[in-house]
Amino acid sequence: MRPSKRANDELRAVSLERGVSLHAEGSCLVKFGNTHVLCMASLEERVPPFLKNSGKGWVTAEYGMLPRATGDRMRREASSGKQSGRTQEIQRLIGRSMRAVVDLEALGERQITIDCDVIQADGGTRTAGITGAFVALNDCLAWMEGRGMVTRSKVLKDHIAAISCGIYKGEPVLDLDYLEDSAADTDANFVMTGRGGIVEIQGTAEKEPFSEAELASLLALAKGGIGTLVELQRQAIA
Amino acid sequence: MRPSKRANDELRAVSLERGVSLHAEGSCLVKFGNTHVLCMASLEERVPPFLKNSGKGWVTAEYGMLPRATGDRMRREASSGKQSGRTQEIQRLIGRSMRAVVDLEALGERQITIDCDVIQADGGTRTAGITGAFVALNDCLAWMEGRGMVTRSKVLKDHIAAISCGIYKGEPVLDLDYLEDSAADTDANFVMTGRGGIVEIQGTAEKEPFSEAELASLLALAKGGIGTLVELQRQAIA
Amino acid sequence: MRPSKRANDELRAVSLERGVSLHAEGSCLVKFGNTHVLCMASLEERVPPFLKNSGKGWVTAEYGMLPRATGDRMRREASSGKQSGRTQEIQRLIGRSMRAVVDLEALGERQITIDCDVIQADGGTRTAGITGAFVALNDCLAWMEGRGMVTRSKVLKDHIAAISCGIYKGEPVLDLDYLEDSAADTDANFVMTGRGGIVEIQGTAEKEPFSEAELASLLALAKGGIGTLVELQRQAIA
Amino acid sequence: MRPSKRANDELRAVSLERGVSLHAEGSCLVKFGNTHVLCMASLEERVPPFLKNSGKGWVTAEYGMLPRATGDRMRREASSGKQSGRTQEIQRLIGRSMRAVVDLEALGERQITIDCDVIQADGGTRTAGITGAFVALNDCLAWMEGRGMVTRSKVLKDHIAAISCGIYKGEPVLDLDYLEDSAADTDANFVMTGRGGIVEIQGTAEKEPFSEAELASLLALAKGGIGTLVELQRQAIA
Amino acid sequence: MRPSKRANDELRAVSLERGVSLHAEGSCLVKFGNTHVLCMASLEERVPPFLKNSGKGWVTAEYGMLPRATGDRMRREASSGKQSGRTQEIQRLIGRSMRAVVDLEALGERQITIDCDVIQADGGTRTAGITGAFVALNDCLAWMEGRGMVTRSKVLKDHIAAISCGIYKGEPVLDLDYLEDSAADTDANFVMTGRGGIVEIQGTAEKEPFSEAELASLLALAKGGIGTLVELQRQAIA
Amino acid sequence: MRPSKRANDELRAVSLERGVSLHAEGSCLVKFGNTHVLCMASLEERVPPFLKNSGKGWVTAEYGMLPRATGDRMRREASSGKQSGRTQEIQRLIGRSMRAVVDLEALGERQITIDCDVIQADGGTRTAGITGAFVALNDCLAWMEGRGMVTRSKVLKDHIAAISCGIYKGEPVLDLDYLEDSAADTDANFVMTGRGGIVEIQGTAEKEPFSEAELASLLALAKGGIGTLVELQRQAIA
Repeated sequence: MRPSKRANDELRAVSLERGVSLHAEGSCLVKFGNTHVLCMASLEERVPPFLKNSGKGWVTAEYGMLPRATGDRMRREASSGKQSGRTQEIQRLIGRSMRAVVDLEALGERQITIDCDVIQADGGTRTAGITGAFVALNDCLAWMEGRGMVTRSKVLKDHIAAISCGIYKGEPVLDLDYLEDSAADTDANFVMTGRGGIVEIQGTAEKEPFSEAELASLLALAKGGIGTLVELQRQAIA
Repeated sequence: MRPSKRANDELRAVSLERGVSLHAEGSCLVKFGNTHVLCMASLEERVPPFLKNSGKGWVTAEYGMLPRATGDRMRREASSGKQSGRTQEIQRLIGRSMRAVVDLEALGERQITIDCDVIQADGGTRTAGITGAFVALNDCLAWMEGRGMVTRSKVLKDHIAAISCGIYKGEPVLDLDYLEDSAADTDANFVMTGRGGIVEIQGTAEKEPFSEAELASLLALAKGGIGTLVELQRQAIA
Repeated sequence: MRPSKRANDELRAVSLERGVSLHAEGSCLVKFGNTHVLCMASLEERVPPFLKNSGKGWVTAEYGMLPRATGDRMRREASSGKQSGRTQEIQRLIGRSMRAVVDLEALGERQITIDCDVIQADGGTRTAGITGAFVALNDCLAWMEGRGMVTRSKVLKDHIAAISCGIYKGEPVLDLDYLEDSAADTDANFVMTGRGGIVEIQGTAEKEPFSEAELASLLALAKGGIGTLVELQRQAIA
Repeated sequence: MRPSKRANDELRAVSLERGVSLHAEGSCLVKFGNTHVLCMASLEERVPPFLKNSGKGWVTAEYGMLPRATGDRMRREASSGKQSGRTQEIQRLIGRSMRAVVDLEALGERQITIDCDVIQADGGTRTAGITGAFVALNDCLAWMEGRGMVTRSKVLKDHIAAISCGIYKGEPVLDLDYLEDSAADTDANFVMTGRGGIVEIQGTAEKEPFSEAELASLLALAKGGIGTLVELQRQAIA
Repeated sequence: MRPSKRANDELRAVSLERGVSLHAEGSCLVKFGNTHVLCMASLEERVPPFLKNSGKGWVTAEYGMLPRATGDRMRREASSGKQSGRTQEIQRLIGRSMRAVVDLEALGERQITIDCDVIQADGGTRTAGITGAFVALNDCLAWMEGRGMVTRSKVLKDHIAAISCGIYKGEPVLDLDYLEDSAADTDANFVMTGRGGIVEIQGTAEKEPFSEAELASLLALAKGGIGTLVELQRQAIA
Repeated sequence: MRPSKRANDELRAVSLERGVSLHAEGSCLVKFGNTHVLCMASLEERVPPFLKNSGKGWVTAEYGMLPRATGDRMRREASSGKQSGRTQEIQRLIGRSMRAVVDLEALGERQITIDCDVIQADGGTRTAGITGAFVALNDCLAWMEGRGMVTRSKVLKDHIAAISCGIYKGEPVLDLDYLEDSAADTDANFVMTGRGGIVEIQGTAEKEPFSEAELASLLALAKGGIGTLVELQRQAIA
């Protein structure tokens, strides 16, 4: 039995609230249960040096947590003077995930930065972040389309969403919350497109190594969960 | 005429929403119009080195802005590797303001850190932050009182709130929003207690020096505004 | 009775020694009693990015303390790798104060940086710094006038000086030294022009909140003190 | 046809040279073709703060590249003042991989740090690093066993090795070199134990998303490659 | 002919002014012509970790330059966030030089830090710094002797002073000023004791390599110069 | 008797292995006994700002040690976020030494960076580094000559090599290893050209000051040692 009483293949309550920022070109407050991430997409008319005069644009992401998003207060990264390895790993993952569904030539020589800031954490902040970042990105492109800058459907090739799975007390479960995450034997994050292609898979044995069969069962759970998330994205941006 | 059509002595719509964090011992989402600041109070059983074995506690604050809280995206301080002078000035001010109404001996040898994170900015983030931080601090002390750690009324000597005033197009106005703030001749922030004592006053001539008479008119406006804010705090924590 | 036996409205012995640097375009060693600050103005033919091609110049300031300027040796900021919040607050204040009396268009597209380095500290380093920085700035402009770069009287609109006041043992006193500063109930810094306009006011209740009447008495003291300082500046640059 | 003419399931020439350091308790120079990584295990009689008085030890890793290990010289991280996100990701992965086969209680309250420094890079530095780090770790434990500190076979639960796979020109291939790595559609790293358990799997779609079937084919290749690597480790430490 | 008209073996005007700091246990403003360095010795009742419980003390130094000590303003190291390689080289040299004449056991388990801050630079700041630091160190020890903490004559084994020499326009000259220093073929700094022992010699060919004979001539000049400096130290501390 | 049984004027076994890097334009693994330094020369088509459009090139060096190059593991500088003063001192010395034998105009407006990374340390890493860096530099210039970019013999004016000497147990000895270095009274490093010119001399009294006679004996030893090193360089690059 999961601490949250959920079925093994059951997502937490998911919501995707758009337009939550007065300033950002696209924004989304995504909630996976008690995990709340604010995603804001910012358009800038510049690209990284390696893309200057290439005709191509760039999509990147930054990730942060409010110091008390977690059970114990963590040190503010701005105050400690550097981003942790974990923070950097996650923001690189979010950026790669977004770029997997973006046609950078169709975007044109400009950059979209998606800030994913965790307001409250209860496990799965990176998967919630990716799922919400897609909505913010979509809305930023819609904003640009409204100004004749791009054709959104040409820039965005597919949906992208992410979910975690794990082996918890010997059973594969979907969408781990913090209690499950800290006790799981294996923890895996999947990033997949609307058409079911795999964009990123990161599986880690926290205690005992896992088998091929376990990997297959986690992947099956993830496919189901991501299918639901993509449907929720569709409804949100309709 | 103010851009927002407000009367010269009119505050923006102010709200103080308590209990917005699953984890923090006290929390408050404060809104002064479009300025939204999330205030979270965290209790820790340790004090800064200079207070070790003194029997006294400490209250401090940290301040941050989400990168796209503003009209243009600002660089993330965690990524640039240091907090700006402005950030440090503000968080020092918030900490001093809280300590002005706290009896550090009655608190006992423990530390409360109040994180004020600006979710959305439209002028007056430091004054909104102070006003909301008081509510978060109060709730943290209530949480402690519920566990027999302190007597809240002994620790908290009074209310504390803050408001900005300025000379805008030649007239003294209360609670400047961003449009007014960027055009004002003079900008002043006042921090005052529930009983009307002045805790902090910071007035700056942005364009022309100001006179004693102007200072007096700003102070009069501030007293009115802070009276209202304190009343709203009373209702919120009732 | 003040520790220094001064009357409540009495400044410490103030001196403004010009031309103390072989290299700087303008320089002044200012002494407020035992507080000694070396102010050097440096002219550079460049402006910050936000002023490029604007036709306007910039005046800015940096502040530092020698590690043993104080009673106990403080850690060298160059060694610790960052400037404290206090340092940043003060250098921002000095820069704003100078700009309040400078016509940036008349200066033309160039930058003057005023370094205020505290050689010895005994309270009031920021107010001494501002008072001396004006003299260094004036001499830098005179140096430029001598080379046909500017008309000094067009760039410099007025004098600017600063003084601290405080409530010490229940009485308002002028120009606090370190002993008074550490024991004062309220500490306020005033920056004013030669014509008596207020440019900056920063008042902080160190112990008990202060009243409007107390603020008024401090302002009255400050006006007197700044009048004297401006007269000393006039004599020094005559 | 692969640029190196290798069969799709063919590793590069692999060598594991032990005892290459005069000072380190265990060391190994691992070569996967032109990728050369120096692995040195250092024993220290201390543990991270969270393990103090727990009776448990810790194994961690650090990773670096010489500036000219690569085709173009990269900036020295010691000079730029921070480790890149990529560096941090890799060293966290190496540390987790080692800990997956170590009984931290049997190690006792001490720390082994494994430095993996890339002398020359041609793709696969992290997988070579993990494979060599195991040998260095083993030798460090043998050194400790020789001094009666631990029983090596109780601390080390299994072998651990790693290999990369990818979809290159439409075909799954094993152990990508730099030319393949930069052109691959999909890049995946596998960390597995001697008994075939999966410890870590990281797959990324560099261009097009990949399918379940492709993931399965990569996993099959990896199992074969890691089987060979583990056998080479066995011969090396025999 | 030297730019300053000095004879080849002639020092600049040297002065050693003691007691220039209200706070420091020992202090000296040293001038070698237009090079002015403020040396302040601070006593602290602690030692570096490697000396804890050793019964031995430590003497160390820090070095800094005011930003406009030089002809062009240099960036403030506290603001750039790190000390340059040059700064570190010099402060390590000053510390080693002082320790060469101190009996660390006779000092007892405490630390003296000597801050050498360059107020104005015209070549030879490190040699002036060492020469002045000795006087500050001596006065700090006298201060301690006055409180019964040490016997100064047991701690201080000899005088220590330093001077630069160089090959300027083909001729060996003593005590280079900035004009000479920037044009010299060879630049050498000598640190010697009162009894004529060599403590440090650093010679660098700026343009052409130098010969043994040239080295000998520079050493001869240095001996003469340091003899004079030691005599001036003797008079100063008498 | 020296710990290594060497005669007082005997070098350790020296080897200079060229072409050890797949990527670098020039490379050399230099060994002075158990001290092993990897030297890689990298050509870049850019120069530091102060040489832009000057027609002159630049040669610079960086130095690093693998964390476990030493008997006890040292903290990785990339992880601590800054290079130590010692590291900076050494890399500045190596760069100056190379430039002493390079005609920067004949090099043309490009930069060669020589990375000297200590793989294993047993005293004398800087002198081994300089001796090996020369070989890497030579090979980089040969690589350039092969592409018609420079005439190597015009760029390289002479050989350059370095050696340490010291007073160990009262006797002058050549090429100190770690055991001797830590016990020596005096430690001196000499950098000299193939024609015997002195480029750099750095002598430090670690315990007692040294005399002119001792300096002369160290210089004599160094001349002999550097003569041998230059001959080994000649054989290596022949």
